[in-house]
Amino acid sequence: MAQGLKVLNAVLPQDVKLETKEFDFGAKRYHATGETLTDADVEALKQYDAILLGAIGDPSVPSGVLERGFLLKLRFLFDHHVNLRPSKLLPGVATPLAGQPEIDFVVVREGTEGPYTGNGGSIRTGTPHEVATEVSVNTAFGVERVVRDAFARAQARPRKKLTLVHKNNVLAYAGHLWTNVFNEVAKEFPDVTTDYIHVDAATIYLVTDPARFDVIVTDNLFGDIITDLAAAVSGGIGVAASGNINPSREFPSMFEPVHGSAPDIAGQGKADPSATVLSVALLLRHLGYEDEAGRIETAVSADLAERGDTVRTTEQIGDALAVRVAG
Amino acid sequence: MAQGLKVLNAVLPQDVKLETKEFDFGAKRYHATGETLTDADVEALKQYDAILLGAIGDPSVPSGVLERGFLLKLRFLFDHHVNLRPSKLLPGVATPLAGQPEIDFVVVREGTEGPYTGNGGSIRTGTPHEVATEVSVNTAFGVERVVRDAFARAQARPRKKLTLVHKNNVLAYAGHLWTNVFNEVAKEFPDVTTDYIHVDAATIYLVTDPARFDVIVTDNLFGDIITDLAAAVSGGIGVAASGNINPSREFPSMFEPVHGSAPDIAGQGKADPSATVLSVALLLRHLGYEDEAGRIETAVSADLAERGDTVRTTEQIGDALAVRVAG
Ligand SMILES: CC(C)[C@H](C(=O)O)[C@@H](O)C(=O)O
Ligand SMILES: CC(C)[C@H](C(=O)O)[C@@H](O)C(=O)O
Repeated sequence: MAQGLKVLNAVLPQDVKLETKEFDFGAKRYHATGETLTDADVEALKQYDAILLGAIGDPSVPSGVLERGFLLKLRFLFDHHVNLRPSKLLPGVATPLAGQPEIDFVVVREGTEGPYTGNGGSIRTGTPHEVATEVSVNTAFGVERVVRDAFARAQARPRKKLTLVHKNNVLAYAGHLWTNVFNEVAKEFPDVTTDYIHVDAATIYLVTDPARFDVIVTDNLFGDIITDLAAAVSGGIGVAASGNINPSREFPSMFEPVHGSAPDIAGQGKADPSATVLSVALLLRHLGYEDEAGRIETAVSADLAERGDTVRTTEQIGDALAVRVAG
Repeated sequence: MAQGLKVLNAVLPQDVKLETKEFDFGAKRYHATGETLTDADVEALKQYDAILLGAIGDPSVPSGVLERGFLLKLRFLFDHHVNLRPSKLLPGVATPLAGQPEIDFVVVREGTEGPYTGNGGSIRTGTPHEVATEVSVNTAFGVERVVRDAFARAQARPRKKLTLVHKNNVLAYAGHLWTNVFNEVAKEFPDVTTDYIHVDAATIYLVTDPARFDVIVTDNLFGDIITDLAAAVSGGIGVAASGNINPSREFPSMFEPVHGSAPDIAGQGKADPSATVLSVALLLRHLGYEDEAGRIETAVSADLAERGDTVRTTEQIGDALAVRVAG
């Protein structure tokens, strides 16, 4: 996080006054206070243009507490419906795939619906007769706005290609809605080439032919799954950035590395800050600083390309990136 | 399919009288009659010990019709709750992963619950106010039987390791049920090592460290997704076999290649029958012909290892395998 802010400060024009405030939302605070995100926190966050989130979480916190109590809560409260996850295999970056394929696509994952709504429940809980349900909720309103966003992103890219990923042969109700809305919105973007693939087949293409993808739009859960795979094949979660975006800017959007908090190496100066720094680039682009965003991406790309086998600390990488973006 | 039956006939002991009947369930019949699976079909199928399913489906049939009208219908009617999908990277088989990793694991996918139940619906369908839901239904009964089956399979393997794959940090109701049942059943199998990983992280491990997996047990939808990925990394769907198993044998179990019908190459003698032949091995093992199943697997493995760049027809491969299993 310190390196992300360092690079942010280095890249901003002199006349931009950056006002930052640090919030503590990690496992330590939860253990000390039992709080994850209070109403006061939410009000305070609303005063800002954007949130840069350091990875949170620790094995000492029960699974789901911080996820639902903080991360998902903010996504829903601030209506982060565009969950943006670019995947680009940069030169010099190792991939588990043979033959160093070309990878350069963006996943637009819906962020406020689907199976993430917390709808569902259980009866006879803990007995041999328990029934537990999870309800995926999908609305035309919610699907259309994210599909439209994805079409616009596809149109702005050289290849202009958009793939819908779903499972409409089995999840027929949600699948019908997604497919229908996708086909309707497509009419407004006649220069965008479209196709559809099932989520299971998408995982095959991600490892056998990732170059086939340009922009992908998909449901919250499918997006969660395929973006981890996408990050893995395009250099690992060490370099994967993401944005939880509310395009209206009514509430602050949130940017974060895809990776977790890696408590096993915390404080050792071993973590690669690239994913956080690339998240800063997404943040800047969202706020209209396209040029600065591009400079950060170029810097990270050059740094990775020249890195070789040199071992550097988190801080050394941050310093090198700050020099590059300023230069 | 012809090659699968050829190998089946070649491997069976002389004194086993094999009775087969061919059923037509493909796109052609659907177009001619509008039928996918009639009550009479179901009654007829019930007379048999097992079903060997050739890949069905064609782009001319609307997405979902054959899937839900035939494949899923049979899984539910015959209570195929153990969806068994082994993944083994055989010598000589290409993988998209660099460095030819060791891959030898089995996924036990639940086959009759989760988001596959067809529960859900939509209101204001086709309007800007549509709401579409999909309900994942999970029962202690359904989860326990498949988890128990997976533990038994893990116990029978040298490494004795079982991984639960779910998304219990977000899908809290279903996740709680799965995790609870898993931990309870684990007590009966103290010699089986267990762990848990989220489905998104599982896709990362499948490409960065597939050797970590021995047996995986998971929900219907997660199993659908990760087994396509598993097939892709372990040599492609050309060699991936699967079983839709009802361990009680009350109804016939069904065995099928993971791949689709590939209508683009139908009738050209180009398709690799290995996945169908390996499905025959799973079928034989289910019916107690362990020795014959093993012989088929050894034959396919040897055939693939010696294949090199030789191009053979579907029939030539089938003939070679029939000779191997008989010899
Ligand atoms: C931590 C978890 C709730 C989250 C998700 O499932 O969305 C994470 O996996 C992600 O992809 O941002
Ligand atoms: C064809 C489809 C309904 C099926 C599924 O989703 O289960 C297939 O993908 C599979 O994995 O057997």
